[in-house]
Amino acid sequence: MKILITGGAGFIGSHLCDTLLAAGHEVVAIDNLSLGRKANLAHLEGDARFRLVIGEILDDTVFAPLVAGGGFDCVFHMAANSDIARSHAAPSIDFDRTFLTTFRVLEAMRGANIKKLVFASTSAIYGEAGGLVAEDHGPLSPISHYGAGKLASEAFISSFGENYGIQSWITRFPNVVGGRATHGAVFDFVHRLIADRTALKVLGNGKQVKPYLFVSDLVDAIMTVFTRCDEPTNIYNVGVETTTTVADIARFVLEEGGIDAPIVYTGGDRGWIGDVPQFAYDISKLTRLGWRASMTSDEAVRRAARAIWAESL
Amino acid sequence: MKILITGGAGFIGSHLCDTLLAAGHEVVAIDNLSLGRKANLAHLEGDARFRLVIGEILDDTVFAPLVAGGGFDCVFHMAANSDIARSHAAPSIDFDRTFLTTFRVLEAMRGANIKKLVFASTSAIYGEAGGLVAEDHGPLSPISHYGAGKLASEAFISSFGENYGIQSWITRFPNVVGGRATHGAVFDFVHRLIADRTALKVLGNGKQVKPYLFVSDLVDAIMTVFTRCDEPTNIYNVGVETTTTVADIARFVLEEGGIDAPIVYTGGDRGWIGDVPQFAYDISKLTRLGWRASMTSDEAVRRAARAIWAESL
Repeated sequence: MKILITGGAGFIGSHLCDTLLAAGHEVVAIDNLSLGRKANLAHLEGDARFRLVIGEILDDTVFAPLVAGGGFDCVFHMAANSDIARSHAAPSIDFDRTFLTTFRVLEAMRGANIKKLVFASTSAIYGEAGGLVAEDHGPLSPISHYGAGKLASEAFISSFGENYGIQSWITRFPNVVGGRATHGAVFDFVHRLIADRTALKVLGNGKQVKPYLFVSDLVDAIMTVFTRCDEPTNIYNVGVETTTTVADIARFVLEEGGIDAPIVYTGGDRGWIGDVPQFAYDISKLTRLGWRASMTSDEAVRRAARAIWAESL
Repeated sequence: MKILITGGAGFIGSHLCDTLLAAGHEVVAIDNLSLGRKANLAHLEGDARFRLVIGEILDDTVFAPLVAGGGFDCVFHMAANSDIARSHAAPSIDFDRTFLTTFRVLEAMRGANIKKLVFASTSAIYGEAGGLVAEDHGPLSPISHYGAGKLASEAFISSFGENYGIQSWITRFPNVVGGRATHGAVFDFVHRLIADRTALKVLGNGKQVKPYLFVSDLVDAIMTVFTRCDEPTNIYNVGVETTTTVADIARFVLEEGGIDAPIVYTGGDRGWIGDVPQFAYDISKLTRLGWRASMTSDEAVRRAARAIWAESL
């Protein structure tokens, strides 16, 4: 297939480029490099089946012509703000980058008659839901603009699917960790320690508990859903059944960095407004496809800490 | 309270203006008159507690200054495209009028520190859900861009609520009928018969079955939720437990118009792409507030037919 991947130079997008090329596809990545980095794709230079377009989805002179003339069979739409905490002060960040990008992708696909869409959704659409949250959970009450932007995206993916026969594979991601990350607790802790090795400041009380999935496991789950499911709309939670506390993330980052410093908590039950303090996914639907994460949440966080230390020093 | 109502000259909005004024509030309505009509508010001219602003929510030079300088306690956001069938050919209609209007309302409220929002949502967010659909139904898979735009609106109402303390009363409307309507089966049938009294063309097979609520009952339900509920977010299905077939709508319109003409069906199980052929609401949450529709679906349709004939001839 010829595949367009948005946000292709980003954390998850760049790993997906690797996997899609390895699977034999032709890949065009578009990225505005706001969070993505050319370095994430440097190893693909010279691969005749790969091309990186540096540009904006929201720039009509760039994106619509790229899609119209590209002969694509499928779009992987990964571009988004992805830094949840930022948009409290400026909701337009998630309006533009998390939601409007999706609407423009859908409109471009409608124009170019492209019928397959793989979309990066998120556990954040569920908000502060208690218990094990399955795909049919309701009501959907996102507490971050990021979650709102993703839910709004899913809404229009649904209506475009019905109106124009665009088939979709929607995977709802948990917290994802690994090399090439641009934000998140592991990344932040490493960078705080690089700036000041005498103490590690941690937002909240350290007790937030979430499942963390390693990026290679996420990419594997996305490809599992994409290759094995064929409903008009395919919605899957992606996760891991184990969890990690923020206190343990801090400990793993210190240990992997070989640093012995105290952890200083700012207090409160969450890191920022819009942060969900606890979350547990029901991933039985995905498990029934035969997929399981290859490592626990703790293993994923520790391995991510090692990768980010290696990249950052 | 001083209340701003968007879409205030429209079908439902104008009835709400009447009710809010009768309840002692001061009301400013804004309407771009794309679907609304000045005639719907003509009877309020001279009421010192009422003002109509003709203008666009999406025009930054009009809306944000109106909200910023208005001293409003609450916004009733009723403006939307509302004509579901139209946007199959142009999804931007619902993107702009059903969704983006909501985002602009939320941003203006954030700017002006207004903390109360009453929002007109819809059964269309549920898509083709089977069974009795309650407020916690999932997944939410709207099949029309209208439903997608309303779900996207609810998503950002949720995140704005969490981020800025904006309290919301979200009522999810069924099909609503009554005088001042601008579209819908009753309206369309009357106007088709005015153009040609020899036969009534009906899209679909006539077997679509939905609950129809009379507009005064809807307004009463909105006010019940607004005045009796005080959670940060208050989501209620509004409906009536009885239903009416499209064939019966056609018959009531013919009878109320005093016309004896054949009904000609175009065939198929729905009227247009995005039309939900059958729908049944669970309204027990609203019923527990002590609210009930004052008339059956059939009575509502017949009374609406009478009102629309009276307005249209």
